[in-house]
Amino acid sequence: MPAIDPQRLLADLRHLRSIGAQGIGVVRPAFSAKDMEARRWLKSRYEEAGLEAAIDGVGNVLGRSRKAGKALLLGSHSDTQPTGGWLDGALGVICALEVARALAADRATRNLPLDIVSFQDEESRFVGCLGSRSLSGMLTPEIEEGAADKDGVRLADALRAAGLAGTPRLRISRERYAGFIEAHIEQGPTLEDAGKRIGVVTGIVGLRGIRFTFRGQQNHAGTTMMKTRKDASSALYELAHRINTEFPKAAAERSVWTMGRLKVEPNATSIVPGYADLDLQFRDASDAPLDAFEKIAARIVAEMNARGGVRIEATPSRAPIAPTKMDEGLRAHLEAAAEQRAPGQWMRLPSGAFHDAGIVSACLPSAMLFIPSIGGISHDFAENSRDEDIVLGCQVLADAAASVLATANGAGAQVTS
Amino acid sequence: MPAIDPQRLLADLRHLRSIGAQGIGVVRPAFSAKDMEARRWLKSRYEEAGLEAAIDGVGNVLGRSRKAGKALLLGSHSDTQPTGGWLDGALGVICALEVARALAADRATRNLPLDIVSFQDEESRFVGCLGSRSLSGMLTPEIEEGAADKDGVRLADALRAAGLAGTPRLRISRERYAGFIEAHIEQGPTLEDAGKRIGVVTGIVGLRGIRFTFRGQQNHAGTTMMKTRKDASSALYELAHRINTEFPKAAAERSVWTMGRLKVEPNATSIVPGYADLDLQFRDASDAPLDAFEKIAARIVAEMNARGGVRIEATPSRAPIAPTKMDEGLRAHLEAAAEQRAPGQWMRLPSGAFHDAGIVSACLPSAMLFIPSIGGISHDFAENSRDEDIVLGCQVLADAAASVLATANGAGAQVTS
Repeated sequence: MPAIDPQRLLADLRHLRSIGAQGIGVVRPAFSAKDMEARRWLKSRYEEAGLEAAIDGVGNVLGRSRKAGKALLLGSHSDTQPTGGWLDGALGVICALEVARALAADRATRNLPLDIVSFQDEESRFVGCLGSRSLSGMLTPEIEEGAADKDGVRLADALRAAGLAGTPRLRISRERYAGFIEAHIEQGPTLEDAGKRIGVVTGIVGLRGIRFTFRGQQNHAGTTMMKTRKDASSALYELAHRINTEFPKAAAERSVWTMGRLKVEPNATSIVPGYADLDLQFRDASDAPLDAFEKIAARIVAEMNARGGVRIEATPSRAPIAPTKMDEGLRAHLEAAAEQRAPGQWMRLPSGAFHDAGIVSACLPSAMLFIPSIGGISHDFAENSRDEDIVLGCQVLADAAASVLATANGAGAQVTS
Repeated sequence: MPAIDPQRLLADLRHLRSIGAQGIGVVRPAFSAKDMEARRWLKSRYEEAGLEAAIDGVGNVLGRSRKAGKALLLGSHSDTQPTGGWLDGALGVICALEVARALAADRATRNLPLDIVSFQDEESRFVGCLGSRSLSGMLTPEIEEGAADKDGVRLADALRAAGLAGTPRLRISRERYAGFIEAHIEQGPTLEDAGKRIGVVTGIVGLRGIRFTFRGQQNHAGTTMMKTRKDASSALYELAHRINTEFPKAAAERSVWTMGRLKVEPNATSIVPGYADLDLQFRDASDAPLDAFEKIAARIVAEMNARGGVRIEATPSRAPIAPTKMDEGLRAHLEAAAEQRAPGQWMRLPSGAFHDAGIVSACLPSAMLFIPSIGGISHDFAENSRDEDIVLGCQVLADAAASVLATANGAGAQVTS
């Protein structure tokens, strides 16, 4: 089996961390100057690894093997949350690079076609999983057209500013690939709590979003009597608190919902706000609780609108993502590699976070490997994993990749081609 | 009685509106470039009116009469809300200027000492009523030291940027003045609903503020199970909704409370927020409901903190303002002038909004005159008043000012000095 180089792996991860570093965290949102700098650096690293590399028209970095045969795609995303951790996405991107180098350095695997990728905007600055959607042929003009970030910057302008306006957009060829595998940090505490070092992902939860807008009447906070107010912020507080009160009745064991982004205008202490909006995001591994949450939210909105005053509208804030299962065949390769390298120290688990693999699974067999997150913390500067777990995860990924490619190209492919 | 010039009054009001105009509204927050431009223009207008004019070390524009005798001070503020109307503050500033010109042009009043002022930062960018506090000797180093706006800009830096760091700060001389009168738009619907054109203010409501901070744990919105979350935003929604539910039980007829400014960090759809803060402001004409509101808020915070999870702290967000009564003597002059110019068309009313007169009343007898706000709308671009009401209000102010000065300086002062 090909041996990865732990020092090279960790050095490259730390170099990527340095691009956009703020303290121990990273600020490298999609299409920012730091994000594009990181993508240019990845492209040069892909080329040094012997791959044909390109940054495509939505910012994906794709490194293609020049070898013949059925290929495997490995990768993740290198954009970060507005105040993100250093491993979310970056782990899978650099592990893929290291696996490509390890396979190329091993006589038994050097002729196997392994492609690697860093997707763009997984973290939803403009469109969640923009890059993997585009590569999978799922980025429709409707999704793209109105896309803007929370400061009102339009996707089209961000693409232009990044110099990508005229660059071709690449597509995944279903014929070329045996499948896609993404390594990622767990971003939750399940592995750590269970004392395991590797997770093989069974499926990815579905995700839906609703944006609520509240239109009232902006007015003076001293002279407008309570009974005549149309206070957009108070309507927001009531709706949000009722959602938190009523959703538990319809929730499954691992259902989650979050109202972490909002806006109140003009956001001044002495002014009754005339406008507010709020994002609700909810996830579950099956559709039933998601359907129930939608019904509850619609009922609360209808009840509040029936009272008059502030006018509330609810619209989907994003394309819904259906719960997806990971490919059984690829999972078997990951499980065998995990049992080989870390006997008894791996487990199967669902992913509560969404990932590019959830998009790619629509056009390629896809699978995911998790390593533990210390304290389960993610989407935070404090996000971290143990070096040993990073190295182990990368080695399991390399073993599984070699095994998938050997199988896909016939038993003797690795020595004869 | 001195006659004001309606065209000159309205022309100057419209010129002031043009400095920082955005559509029909005005954006001229304290110490912004537009605010300082307006203050330099006012100073030149004060000088043209024959006054000794200066911009003091906190940005107040003071125009002092060179005439001898007991003086009267008229004025208001020329800074605006972040997205403000064109008359809030500006009305009283330009009416004062017009009254100074009218008195100077009338043989019977030209030797009476009338001073005029535009206070700084009534609208609380840094410190509510910063300018009148400073002029009244009530701006303590403690208030000033930590002062910063909602974007984190420090008052000291704003003063430096405005070129005021070395400029002397003026003080109101209690000996010089018979009193202070502020003309202002009502900013509420009471006059309009009652079909009146002039309001003589009986008192100004008291005002207190609490800032709540919510400290939880920032985390991933997909992988962090509901029962282990420390979600700062959900705690904010609950607290705010409970305040809206419980305050009515302790409210007096004209009690108001507002939670119009908040912050959630990092304010992203897919992240459980680890930090939030919220401002609560509450007002009443007497202290009892204000005391009760403070007790309710403290109890809710204690109950929520007892559950663990998100840690809530409540601290005063501003220096409290006690309810104040307007001066009976000055009110009598305003009432007589109103009855003379608009018989049966004026009324007495409390002010639900706070004003500089509420600060100045601590060192000088103070009074206020209101004109109607169309639709009661204020702190909004749509704020407006009828031209006839503006002109009438200014004339009543001129009459009252002449009458106060004549009384203060002896019956024959206006012709003999």
